[in-house]
This record gives sequence, structure tokens and C-alpha cells, in this order.
Amino acid sequence: MIGEPLSSDKLEGQLLPKHLALPIFASDALSSVAYGPQELLMILTLGGLSFLTFAPWVAAAVVVVLVTVVASYRQLIKAYPSGGGDFEVAHKNLGEKAGLIVASALLIDYILTVAVSVASGVDNIISAFPVLNTWRVEMAIGFIILLAAVNLRGVRESSKAFALPTYLFIASVLVMIVVGIIRMALGDAPVAESAQYAVKAEQFTQVGMVLLLLRAFASGCSALTGVEAVANGVPAFRIPKIQNAKRTLLLMGGIAITLFIGVTTLALISGVHYAEDPCNLIGMADCATQPQRSVMAQLAAAVFGGDTQILFYVLQGATAAVLLLAANTAFNGFPLLGSVLARDGYAPKSLSTRGDRLVYSNGVLVLGLGAGILLVVYQANLTALIQLYIIGVFVSFTFGQTGMVRHWLRTLREGAGGAPMTMKRSQIIRSLSINTFGALLTATVLVVVTVTKFTHGAWLVFVIGPILFVLMLGVNRYYGKVERDLTVDDITVFGSNGDHAIVLVGRLQKPTLKALDYAIAARHVSIEAVHCSIDDDQTALLRKQWKKMKIEVPLRVIQSPYRDISFPLIKYIKKRRESHGSEVVTVYMPQFIVGHWWENLLHNHKARRIRHKLMLCHGVTIALVPWLLDSSKVLYSRPGRPLPGQERRGEPVRRAVIRKPLPPAGMSSTRRR
Amino acid sequence: MIGEPLSSDKLEGQLLPKHLALPIFASDALSSVAYGPQELLMILTLGGLSFLTFAPWVAAAVVVVLVTVVASYRQLIKAYPSGGGDFEVAHKNLGEKAGLIVASALLIDYILTVAVSVASGVDNIISAFPVLNTWRVEMAIGFIILLAAVNLRGVRESSKAFALPTYLFIASVLVMIVVGIIRMALGDAPVAESAQYAVKAEQFTQVGMVLLLLRAFASGCSALTGVEAVANGVPAFRIPKIQNAKRTLLLMGGIAITLFIGVTTLALISGVHYAEDPCNLIGMADCATQPQRSVMAQLAAAVFGGDTQILFYVLQGATAAVLLLAANTAFNGFPLLGSVLARDGYAPKSLSTRGDRLVYSNGVLVLGLGAGILLVVYQANLTALIQLYIIGVFVSFTFGQTGMVRHWLRTLREGAGGAPMTMKRSQIIRSLSINTFGALLTATVLVVVTVTKFTHGAWLVFVIGPILFVLMLGVNRYYGKVERDLTVDDITVFGSNGDHAIVLVGRLQKPTLKALDYAIAARHVSIEAVHCSIDDDQTALLRKQWKKMKIEVPLRVIQSPYRDISFPLIKYIKKRRESHGSEVVTVYMPQFIVGHWWENLLHNHKARRIRHKLMLCHGVTIALVPWLLDSSKVLYSRPGRPLPGQERRGEPVRRAVIRKPLPPAGMSSTRRR
Repeated sequence: MIGEPLSSDKLEGQLLPKHLALPIFASDALSSVAYGPQELLMILTLGGLSFLTFAPWVAAAVVVVLVTVVASYRQLIKAYPSGGGDFEVAHKNLGEKAGLIVASALLIDYILTVAVSVASGVDNIISAFPVLNTWRVEMAIGFIILLAAVNLRGVRESSKAFALPTYLFIASVLVMIVVGIIRMALGDAPVAESAQYAVKAEQFTQVGMVLLLLRAFASGCSALTGVEAVANGVPAFRIPKIQNAKRTLLLMGGIAITLFIGVTTLALISGVHYAEDPCNLIGMADCATQPQRSVMAQLAAAVFGGDTQILFYVLQGATAAVLLLAANTAFNGFPLLGSVLARDGYAPKSLSTRGDRLVYSNGVLVLGLGAGILLVVYQANLTALIQLYIIGVFVSFTFGQTGMVRHWLRTLREGAGGAPMTMKRSQIIRSLSINTFGALLTATVLVVVTVTKFTHGAWLVFVIGPILFVLMLGVNRYYGKVERDLTVDDITVFGSNGDHAIVLVGRLQKPTLKALDYAIAARHVSIEAVHCSIDDDQTALLRKQWKKMKIEVPLRVIQSPYRDISFPLIKYIKKRRESHGSEVVTVYMPQFIVGHWWENLLHNHKARRIRHKLMLCHGVTIALVPWLLDSSKVLYSRPGRPLPGQERRGEPVRRAVIRKPLPPAGMSSTRRR
Repeated sequence: MIGEPLSSDKLEGQLLPKHLALPIFASDALSSVAYGPQELLMILTLGGLSFLTFAPWVAAAVVVVLVTVVASYRQLIKAYPSGGGDFEVAHKNLGEKAGLIVASALLIDYILTVAVSVASGVDNIISAFPVLNTWRVEMAIGFIILLAAVNLRGVRESSKAFALPTYLFIASVLVMIVVGIIRMALGDAPVAESAQYAVKAEQFTQVGMVLLLLRAFASGCSALTGVEAVANGVPAFRIPKIQNAKRTLLLMGGIAITLFIGVTTLALISGVHYAEDPCNLIGMADCATQPQRSVMAQLAAAVFGGDTQILFYVLQGATAAVLLLAANTAFNGFPLLGSVLARDGYAPKSLSTRGDRLVYSNGVLVLGLGAGILLVVYQANLTALIQLYIIGVFVSFTFGQTGMVRHWLRTLREGAGGAPMTMKRSQIIRSLSINTFGALLTATVLVVVTVTKFTHGAWLVFVIGPILFVLMLGVNRYYGKVERDLTVDDITVFGSNGDHAIVLVGRLQKPTLKALDYAIAARHVSIEAVHCSIDDDQTALLRKQWKKMKIEVPLRVIQSPYRDISFPLIKYIKKRRESHGSEVVTVYMPQFIVGHWWENLLHNHKARRIRHKLMLCHGVTIALVPWLLDSSKVLYSRPGRPLPGQERRGEPVRRAVIRKPLPPAGMSSTRRR
């Protein structure tokens, strides 16, 4: 008896209301505010403090892109509400290869989301407690391990625990911005600790200056990462899904823009000087050993001084927490991408169906390992990692927008052809304009980002991306070939004669008896028990027990000189088939069912090896007779643990309980012959 | 048809002749000469150059231990020729827990063998090409990856390629020693490059001085690592195994002692000054950036100057090569240990049988990963790693010797009781004395090593060791419990009635037809095909095809609202059993057989998930009907690749070829009903 399937209103209750969807989907985008302004200012500072006058313009440019991207995604949600996001749009409108490019970029992105968010989170923690600086990389790895462990266990994203940090972060930053502006209005502008330092600047040619501004703009665009999350998660919203998703996206965009502008303004007001190499700050003591505090920390320290210092720690804590949540986002996001890819045959099919914990666990481990390696290689250096980050994001933006442009053009053409349209023509043209502008803008940013960041580490993305592309294409071609091989054609006929059963016997234990029992019950034409002798004492004992229990199935002993079971058995079966013709030989073997994952390391290996070899013989079928070990009781009562990404797919997390059956009905007091 | 089993003389040909056994088993012990003298001198130098006068005495003490250990192991080989080594001796004579302590120590040792050998090899390479110093850790990791990859592929240890570096190393070092001594006799003593540097020494109290000497002695004892390899590999020798093994061990010990004494003498003659912190060498330029050349390299450079400089590079190359071979030793040694442990139930049983490539691959990966982590954490610093290394070695020495003492005492007692003895009483007493002295000596060294190295990193061994101990004990207790659960008792009877077959049908493809065919051939009392409908179009197509092909097995369609196959199926089976009684339900499912490992990522997952859930139902047996994909042709003609450790177990590496069968005899021109 299985637990009752959820009735439809319970199903509705599993979907996300807007106030819970926001923290889940927005944590990535909002947390980018922790490092976006910082990177922007940092690049500008390379040219000297005078360059900071350009900051408002560069920030404004970033905001323009942000607004455009948000508006564009609202169109995407409207047209493709199934949650496929940029991949689906690119795949359906620009072709298979464009879709795969987007998929590769997104996969790389997930790993970088984890790495960048953790690096930034650690940076903010160290900014609150500078003594931890020597443990930067260790802390980062520690957080990766924590995130991986939590996601292996399975946790519900929609719990209130997840919502709190995001709202706390938004609130704290808003409070900080407001207080800072009020103080400035009152004439007591906050002053950052690094305002006192002058900056050793490089000299730039005119071209170099322009490039520097573009670099700063590109770095500031790291604030856009995470905006696509809502579009990927539309199925998770309550009805009306599209409208709720669009509203949440708008809300998220608005908050992100507000925070971005606010933090940048505050940074300029309080004179934060943040340099790529801290030793370029003239006047900073111990520049080689003392960590440079993050911009967020410096602002918080400047605004919340004295009596309100507790708020400084609250802000840092909330920042670190929301960054960890953003990293967690990746663990929940990639299964979605995996299932979309698998559905179209670009990834192993096992990803497309629900509930394969093993597959998700492997994915969690791959993601954690990838991020961990990045963190170690780059020594948890936030700036270095961000160079890799932005490329992937803007690749998917650009392809997504371009795909949308094609989509609207096609819709217009179909409308012109007389097909009924669900949207008014003016609306379509409006959407088309938004997406066109978005496509052009993000393409420009992509070129800028690539050119300015290539030598700073972004080339790595252009190496790994194609590798993923080739892998996915290869998987698709492979599945296609297998599909063709499996298709029934007119010349395929089967015909087997004969029916023989072999029960594989090692030692005489309960599972063996059960296998015998089932083999007998299946009433094969002929049946025998086969034992491969690798230990003479054991064989002699077996014969004795066989006689004693008066088992009437004949026992055949095969000699095996090399302690090997498979080959003598296979020889025997083939010899039999030569004499008996093309019969089907069913080999009965016990299979242990265990309750804990680690028990799988301790059972079933030998049997599986034998099985794999036997299956290479023609005419052989393996019949697995389950034997439930004591620990398997656990399986009966284990409630359904949440799997990563389930809530984003709008799948109910059912409490699937298999009730333990009554005492085995197969047992009776008569002994079987 | 399988390849013919090797006749007995061919089997003999697979065993190792002495001249091949020496390089395989001695590489670890001989390569220790590359770092043993170095560490000894380095610790002494901490007290200042005057301490080097103690070097001959400390070295002599190390030689005494070496001689004793070699002599003791010759006794062990005589008494326990099955290759269980120290573990078996401790297990059989000192009890289960002592055996597990040895096993834990040995496991840790294997990982450290890899780490230390690779670190030393890299050190010697950098000593030849100092410009590579910045890539020390990367090179080390690179070698780990190479070793792991080679062992995953499988390579024959007994190939001449493996013998050459060891003999070349022995020859080169001997030549170096001889030339150096001749030059000294001729009045042109070689002078090391570091002889010019004075040493900044620490001040020591008297107690401190004694401790320093003991530390130097303990570090010098790292030259003993690897001596146990022969005892673990006795089965691999040609007949007479025991005698050949003893001779090889004697030869190996002699060479090791000669090289150790020679290198140490040469180092003292040429005035090598090697310091733990290179900046303590007064006069050395760029002490922070320039790597300190290894003692081997300095000696080679001093002896082979000018015209014979090519020999310098030959020696460095041979040293690096023999160290890599020593690391490779661990990859081949641990499967032996694993099989011994598994035989006694302390490790997963899958390790005890031959030829599970998956298990060995996992072991290779674990070993590589462990060594890699150590190398990264300790930044490939040889000295730091050696602190961990010696403890484990001497734990197993001590327990092994003590166990032998008990063994001989027991043999004497039995002899006194009148039982026939295979050895003369005087011989036994001689063996007993050797082992007693060995036990006392190694126990003393163990205490010294522990005390002097504890704070320098050896505590890690005392943390990990107990963890392994607990794990192995846990596995043993677990297997014991399962064994008791499985034992047939008088109340166990089975009795099933009824026999129903279900063929699981997804889409109508060739594997499905084969499964139907086999199910029909097995002549079950009743049979039906069951399809779980998750896609209405697919279901409709299936019904159509079913009719068209005129398949007479009835097709039953079960609705599944959640895209889930397992639960509706289980519900259906249980309902059936309630109405039909305790029948055996055989569920026929296709299983893909693939040729390449990566294809397993792409197939069979969904089926396996369904299978696992089905097996929780009572009365269910799963019948796997193999479907051989095209790529499986590879499996038929793949020759047996060597598995790590096979040669050390004396197992033949058979070329097991499964000849491809004739065109499937099961196909005929009549269509089955």
C-alpha cells in the first residue's frame, strides 16, 4: 500500500507563493549586489581616484542593462512558461547548436555561481573578523562541503529558514543606504576607513582609458547574475503562474536596482577606495598580510558606527548568509537544467525522470568538486573568479534574447498569415522591441566582457565550454544511434525453444532456499542447482546439507581450478545449449536488499560480476530473487526526502511510504520439493 | 568458448624469477636511500655542524635496525609463506585487534608511500632542473594522476620496463659511491656545493641534544620503509617460493645497507650541508626562492663533475624513476592487503575474489586521492610527509615481530608436548632470538619515533588509524550478524504457489520483443504485458503497434498520473497477489549490455530504479533479459587487462577471451505467439 497521492488542492499547496518564491529565486541576483559595485569601483580605481568620477555613468550603464534584461525576461516568461529558460528559447528558435552553447554556458555558470558566492561570502566574513584571513581557502572549502552535505541530505528550499536571510539582507542594506543618505543630508556623511588612502595609479593611454571604463562596466555587470532564475522556475509558482512569475521578476529587479544604485552611491559618498592589489593603497599598513575589507563591510562600518555597531555584524551576517543561499541556488538549479537537457537527449536519460537520488547525488558531488577545485586554484580570490563568471551569463542572455526576437518575428508572420493570435499585434511589437534592444545590448556587453576579460582568465571558459558542447552533442548522437538500432523492423523475429532453470548455489543459506523455491514455483520444463566448487571443504559440506534437507532438485557440481565462478558456469551453459538446442536458460540468483547506502559496498558485488558475464551468453536470462536483509526495514518507513530542485519544478514532495507487508505469505508449513 | 586455461607449466612461467622479483619488491626499500640519509643528516645539522660527527654512529644504529629487520622477516617468510605479512602474523598470534592495528597502519602507509615517493622524486627532478621549483606541487599532482591512470588501465609489473630503472639506480649509486671513494683515496675528494655554507644552529640543552640524536635516528629509519614488501609477495615467487623469497630479501637488504652506508659516507666526505630551513645556511643566496638541492643531487654533482656530467642526469633520472616505481608499488600492494582483510571479513568481500576491476579502480582512486590531498596540504614538502610515514611502518614491524615471538614460543611448546616439528629445536631458538631482538628494537624505535615526531605531524596518524580500526571492526561485526541472519534454521520453510509472469513494456522495441519471447518460452502458468501510461500519445501508439504485430500476450495498461512507473506497478502487483494468493510474480525487464564504461551512465538507470522498488514487494522476482548493444562486441574480444597486484599474488594474467557466439540460434522464421 502506498501513501495516498496528494489531492489536487494539496498539490496546489506545494507550489510557491510569491513571498516565498522571491527569496528562493532572488537570492542569487540580490547577492550579486555584494560584489557588483565593489568590482566596478575596483577597476575604476586602477586608473586613479580621478576615475571614480566616471562611476555614476558606468553604474548607470549597468542599471540600463539590468532594466533591459528584466524587461526582456518578462517577455520570455510570457512566451515560454514551461521553465526551459534561455536554453529552450535558443533551442527552439536558433537551432540545436545554439541551444547547446547556452547549455554549456549555463553549466559552467552553475559551478561559478557556487565558487563566486562562497568566495564573496567568505570575504565578507573575514571583513567582519579579519583574524580569520589566513583561513580563507579552508573556510571556502568548508562551506562547499557544508552545502554539498546539506543538498545530499535533501532540504526544502521553501522553508522559512531560507526566506529569512534574504529579507534580512534586503532590509539591512536598505537601512544602511537610507541611514547613510540621511547622515549625508544632515552634514555627517559617513566616511569609509579606506577614504584616507591615496591610490597608486597606472598610466593609461586614451585607448587604455576607454578600455578601463569598459572593463569597469563589464565587472559591474556581474550584478546581473542570477536574473534568469525566475524564468527557469515558472512551473513552481502558484496559479496564475505566468503573472506571478512576472510580478516576482519585476519586484526582484526593482529591489536589485535599488540596492545596486544605493550601494554605489553610498560608496562614492563615503569615499571607499578599494584596490585590486591592496598594496597600491598608499598609506595602508600591512598591505601584504592585512585583508582588505569588502566594500559592503566598509560601508557598514562607516554607517553603523558606535552605538549601532551591532547592525554592522547583522549586515555582514546577512550578506554572508544570502551569498550562501545563492550558492545553494546552483545546487537546486542544475537538476532543472539537467532534466531539460535529458528530455531532449543531450544528457543521460536518467536525469529526466524524477526521484533518482543517486543521479542527483552525483550531480551535487560534481558541482561541489568543480567549485572546490576552482576555489583552491584561484585561492578563493573573488576578482579572479568573477572574470570567468560574467562570460557565461551574457552568452545565455544574448542567445536567449536573440531567440526571443526570432520568436516574436515568427509570431508576427503567423499572425500575418491569418492564424489566430493570443496577443494583440501591438503587444507583440512591444515585446519584440524590448527583446531586440536587449539582444543588441547584451551582445555588446558580451563582446566587451570577452575582450576585456579574456587575458584575465576568461579564456578558461572558452576552453571548457566547447568540451561540454561536444559531450552533449555526442550524447545526443549516441542516443539517436541506439534508438535506430532498437527500432523494430520487419526482419526481426524471435523464437526460442526450451526452458531450463539453473539455481546458482554457493552456500546453503536462506536466500538460496528462497531462490530454489521460486525456481520450483515457476514450473520450468527442467531445473537443476549448479554449484561451482572453489573450496573442497565447502563443497563437501554443501553436498551433506543438500542430502540432509532432502532437496529433490538435483545438485550439479562444476569444478573450478582458478577460484573463478563465471567461466566454468558459462562453459557449462554453452555446452548444454549445444546439446539441447536454443533453449532459454533462466539462472536464479539471490540479490540482497539493504537499508543503508553503505551496505551496498559490502554486498552483491560478486553476484553482479557473475551476472554481467553470464549476460554475454546467448539464451540466458537472470532471475533475481530478492532477499531482504534486516536493515531493509528502514526502506519501508523512510519518508520521501526532498530532492534538489523538486520545488523549482513544481513537483510535490510526496511522503511516499511503502507500508510493510504482512508476514510473508509465501511461507507455509509444508516443505517444498 | 573461453580461452583455454593455462597449463601448469605456463602458470609457472607467470611467476616471478628472482631477477624480476628484486626490482618489483625492492624498489620501495631501495628508493628510501634517496631520502633516508638526507633526513638523518638534516636533523643532525639542526644542532650545528659539530653534530655531524655523530652521523656515523647514528647511521650505524640505523644499519643495525635494518639488518635485524631483514633477518626477522626471513623468519617470518619461513613461518608464514602465504603472503599475509605482518597482518597475518599479528592476527594469528596476537589476536584480532592487534591485527587490525597493523592493518590500519599498513593502509595509512600505502598512501604515505605514494606521497613520500612522489615528493622525493619531484625533489630530485627539481634538483636537476631548479627552474621547475615553482611547479613543485603541480608536478607532484601530475605524477599522482599519471600513476593512477596507468594503474586504472592496468600494467604488468613484471615487464622489463619496470626492472630497468631499479637496476640503473643501483648501478648509478654504486658507481657514484665507488668513484667518490676512489677520488678521496687519490686526494681529490669530492666537495659538495653546500660545503661552503656554515649553519645557523640552535642551542640545545643536554636533554635536547639526546633528543636530537634520537630524532635523527628516527628520521634515518625512514630508510627501512618497504622492507616488508617481499614478505607480502611470497606467493609470486617461483618454486621453491620460500627459499627464493628469503634469498631475494637478503639480496635486497644487502644492497640497501650498502647504498645507505655508501651515501652517508660520501655525504660526510664531501661535506654536504642540508638544512630543514634553507635560510639557516649562512651564505646561501636566494634562500627563499632557490630550491635546496637534494643530498643525492649534491653528491652526484660533486662526484660527476666536468666530463662525466651526463652521469649526474642519469643518476637523477634513475632516482626519480625508482621513486615513481616505489609509489607504483603501493598501487599494487594495497589490493593484496585488501584481499587478505576481505578473506577474514574486515573489508568488503568483493576485494577477496579476483578480477573485480571496478573495486580495484575504486581503490586506485582512493589511494590517488589520499596521496594527492596529502601532497597539496603539505605542499609536497618531503620532510613534513616523512614524519607521518615512519610511524605506520614501525607499528607493523613491532607487531609483526612480537607476533613471530609468540609463534616460535608456541612452536616450542608444541614440540615439547611431543608433536612432530618441521624444524630443529636449535633453529627455532635461533629464529626466536632474532625475532625477539627485532621486536624489542623496533618497539624502541617506535617509541622514539612517536615521541620525537608527534608534534611534527605524526599525531595525524594516531587520529586516522583508530578511525580505520573502527571501520574494519565494524565491517567484521556486520558480516557476522548477516551471516547469523542467513543461516538456515529448522523453522525456515518456504512454499509458494502460483506462477505469473509480467513483461514490462515501455515502447515496442527489439529488447521488449526479446523479453516477451523469453517470458513466453518459460511457459508460466499465466502471462501478461503491463504498460504504465505516462504519455497518452505513446500509449496509443503502443496499442496500435501491439495490434498490428498480432502479439497474443494480453496488454494491460495502468494509469500513472505522476509520470511514475514504480508505484502504480507495485500497487497492481499487490492487488493481484491479494486476489490470487501467494504466487510468484516474475517481472521480465530488458537490460542493456554495453561495451564501454561510459555507456553505463547513459543506460539502465530507470530500469534499475524500478527494479529496486519492485524487489521490496513480496513474491516478486525480476528476470533480466539481456539486450546486447552494438558496442558490446568490444567485450567479446577484449583481452584480459592486468589488474593491480595480480602478479604479486602469483595469479596468472590470463588472456580470457570469450569467443563471440554464432549468429543467435534463438531466431527462426516463425513468429512467436
